[in-house]
Amino acid sequence: CHSARPSLFSTASGFDDYRGFLNLCVVLLVISNARVFLENILKYGILVDPLQWLSAVLYNPYQWPNLLLVLGSSVFIFIAFHIERFLARNYITANTGVTLHTLNLLVAKPHDKINKKLYVITVGSLFSCSVYVVVFLKLWSYAQTNKWYREGYTKALSKRRIHRTSKEFLSRGLLTKLLFPVSMPSSQLKGLRDRSKVMIQYPYNLSYRNLLYFMAAPTLCYEANYPRTSGINKSYLMRRALEILFLFQLELALIQQWVVPVLQKAILPIHNYEGYTIMERLLKLSVPNHFIWLVFFYFFFHSVLNALAEVMKFADREFYRDWWNAETIVYFWQAWNIPVHKWCVRHCYKPLLSIGCPKFAAQVSVFLLSAFFHEYLVSIPLHMFKAWAFFGMTMQIPLSVFTSWVSKRFSSNYGNMIVWMSLILGQPVAILAYVYHYYVTSYTTIA
Amino acid sequence: CHSARPSLFSTASGFDDYRGFLNLCVVLLVISNARVFLENILKYGILVDPLQWLSAVLYNPYQWPNLLLVLGSSVFIFIAFHIERFLARNYITANTGVTLHTLNLLVAKPHDKINKKLYVITVGSLFSCSVYVVVFLKLWSYAQTNKWYREGYTKALSKRRIHRTSKEFLSRGLLTKLLFPVSMPSSQLKGLRDRSKVMIQYPYNLSYRNLLYFMAAPTLCYEANYPRTSGINKSYLMRRALEILFLFQLELALIQQWVVPVLQKAILPIHNYEGYTIMERLLKLSVPNHFIWLVFFYFFFHSVLNALAEVMKFADREFYRDWWNAETIVYFWQAWNIPVHKWCVRHCYKPLLSIGCPKFAAQVSVFLLSAFFHEYLVSIPLHMFKAWAFFGMTMQIPLSVFTSWVSKRFSSNYGNMIVWMSLILGQPVAILAYVYHYYVTSYTTIA
Repeated sequence: CHSARPSLFSTASGFDDYRGFLNLCVVLLVISNARVFLENILKYGILVDPLQWLSAVLYNPYQWPNLLLVLGSSVFIFIAFHIERFLARNYITANTGVTLHTLNLLVAKPHDKINKKLYVITVGSLFSCSVYVVVFLKLWSYAQTNKWYREGYTKALSKRRIHRTSKEFLSRGLLTKLLFPVSMPSSQLKGLRDRSKVMIQYPYNLSYRNLLYFMAAPTLCYEANYPRTSGINKSYLMRRALEILFLFQLELALIQQWVVPVLQKAILPIHNYEGYTIMERLLKLSVPNHFIWLVFFYFFFHSVLNALAEVMKFADREFYRDWWNAETIVYFWQAWNIPVHKWCVRHCYKPLLSIGCPKFAAQVSVFLLSAFFHEYLVSIPLHMFKAWAFFGMTMQIPLSVFTSWVSKRFSSNYGNMIVWMSLILGQPVAILAYVYHYYVTSYTTIA
Repeated sequence: CHSARPSLFSTASGFDDYRGFLNLCVVLLVISNARVFLENILKYGILVDPLQWLSAVLYNPYQWPNLLLVLGSSVFIFIAFHIERFLARNYITANTGVTLHTLNLLVAKPHDKINKKLYVITVGSLFSCSVYVVVFLKLWSYAQTNKWYREGYTKALSKRRIHRTSKEFLSRGLLTKLLFPVSMPSSQLKGLRDRSKVMIQYPYNLSYRNLLYFMAAPTLCYEANYPRTSGINKSYLMRRALEILFLFQLELALIQQWVVPVLQKAILPIHNYEGYTIMERLLKLSVPNHFIWLVFFYFFFHSVLNALAEVMKFADREFYRDWWNAETIVYFWQAWNIPVHKWCVRHCYKPLLSIGCPKFAAQVSVFLLSAFFHEYLVSIPLHMFKAWAFFGMTMQIPLSVFTSWVSKRFSSNYGNMIVWMSLILGQPVAILAYVYHYYVTSYTTIA
């Protein structure tokens, strides 16, 4: 019953099937966190209050300015639309258009209004700031894309000697003709079941309807025509809606039950510079924070954007790629937020390359622009200008060089692990720093 | 820049590459446990004392009886050897041999000696009990295998009319002839470089040298000849020896620093029947306990047994199979401890089948035998007869039926996860129960 053979762990055996240990990791993770959860309940009791957000919104009078700010953003959309109409009619020159758009976008910032009201609460301001950032990016895209369309149209006019000028078109009741471009024969139109499949061409795209669709659609990149679905899948929409309701409450519950006590217990050690205790707090914060971030990712990029897309019959559902397999930081940033990534490539990276900017400098510029918006979204609602979010984003540049090197030199798995590490540990460092300084500036004494 | 495509999480995408999340599990596990480790150090300081075991052995006079007990086991080995010699010489009948072997094995138990000295400390008793269990299993195998050999030899004698009887052989200086059986021509012997490759046949195997090799070899199943290696790989042996030294200290350190505080803080909640706190303690214990068990597995089944095998030039290194991929409890028990599993199959399961016992009943018998030895190894050193270890092992039977059903009905991965769960959670339940009752019986008041 014996025969000569090596043990499986010896290299001589050539055995390398350790997939069972991955299941062990999953099981251990569940068990460890079940314990932390139980410990938390035993220590603090139930802190979850599902209706807290509602009372906060209803009874806090300083929420309403944020709603007004959000509604006010339509003014900038209206202005941008009419700048484009003027440009299409040749009422103003291209350079004047650029100047006007720039002025419009520069004014489209809510921060001076938020700063004046020192007690506007953070979550509401974060929401209105985010809306303004989205409007800013969308209008930038609208202006730039229409510029490309206009240049193409002008070329076509001069080459193919098209009889009508854009001025003529637009003066003759554009809105009624919008869905039926004159260039398309009516015989062909009759055959189409779905009129949304009709391709709209410049300058027929310069309608309120078209712009409003873009403003509501889950994309930051303007196009005159988007791929559309033929109808709304009600059961799909219902599932996404249930996810939104459930995950929103889950996020709130996790923050109330798990994050707030950790943060409260971290203030004092930071104040007293207790190195190891701060590190322990940091690690304690990292797990729930990461879990909340993961749930938020699914909540926003899958549930919310897909629900919105379903309602809008918007067919391009690529809101994220497989960033969880990212072997380099660069791939992570290219994959986790596709609407923003697409915008950065189309409206920042490629234009920079086309004016002769080197590839690496263009990449760095994109990271710096992203760093600016991260800082903006943190500083304005918190009324703190510490530039840590900016610093955190710029740190992604050396980190991305490092992960690329690790993935090439060692295993791509190690690269992936470093990406996860930076996600798990990077955020809580920033959060602790901001929360501590928020406490310090808000309250003069620390309990 | 847009095209119709579904999100990756939607089933329509057909995407299923989530391997990055496995890396996340590993990273999260490391981070969570780093935190627990840091919290432990902050709370208790350094509890590790690498030389504690040495002082415990040297200054505790009740350790020495255990050493004497271990040395005393050689008496039973000596007796078993001579029973076999008498049998081979036909001095005693086969039935007398069975009776004598049974009596010898029944006496070969240290528990009455341990029980008389109530304060013999647990670890020493556990060691001597384990040695006796190993001796017991080896001598059982020795007796049974020699019975099979003898039966085969007698058949060959009657069939092939071999001239010499075993009695003649053994009366004529067996030891000198041992390595050179008469049946093998000397011309063939000269060609062999390594005399250990010479096959020893019954009754030439009945030598001290052969028995001592078996007693020291890392196997519980006796054979007259084992596959051997041609020499000792010194660097391999050195690596195993370093592993033994390091892992032994690591195990001690983990127990002192991580397990003992958790156990001490669990006594009071158990005493007061605080359900949730007990569960929290249980989960808190499960992670270090499982880690210690994993390290112990590697320490004993890889480092110790391979080092021993290298010294003994023993070539069959299959001390474990890939139990970490076990999809059923049955496979786990078949794979994690191959020496015992081999013994059970060869000396319990197959003999039971051969006398007409049904397959399932034979499997249950093996589990019950294993349950008996588990209970024995716990009860004797702790002086407690609670039968929980026995119960725990018998519970493996319904659990194995359950995991087989899960693996077939659902995914084999779920079966694997349940196996891990039972390992991670089953042990700490038993440990908490025994430790609590050990405290209760040892100390009358609980702090």
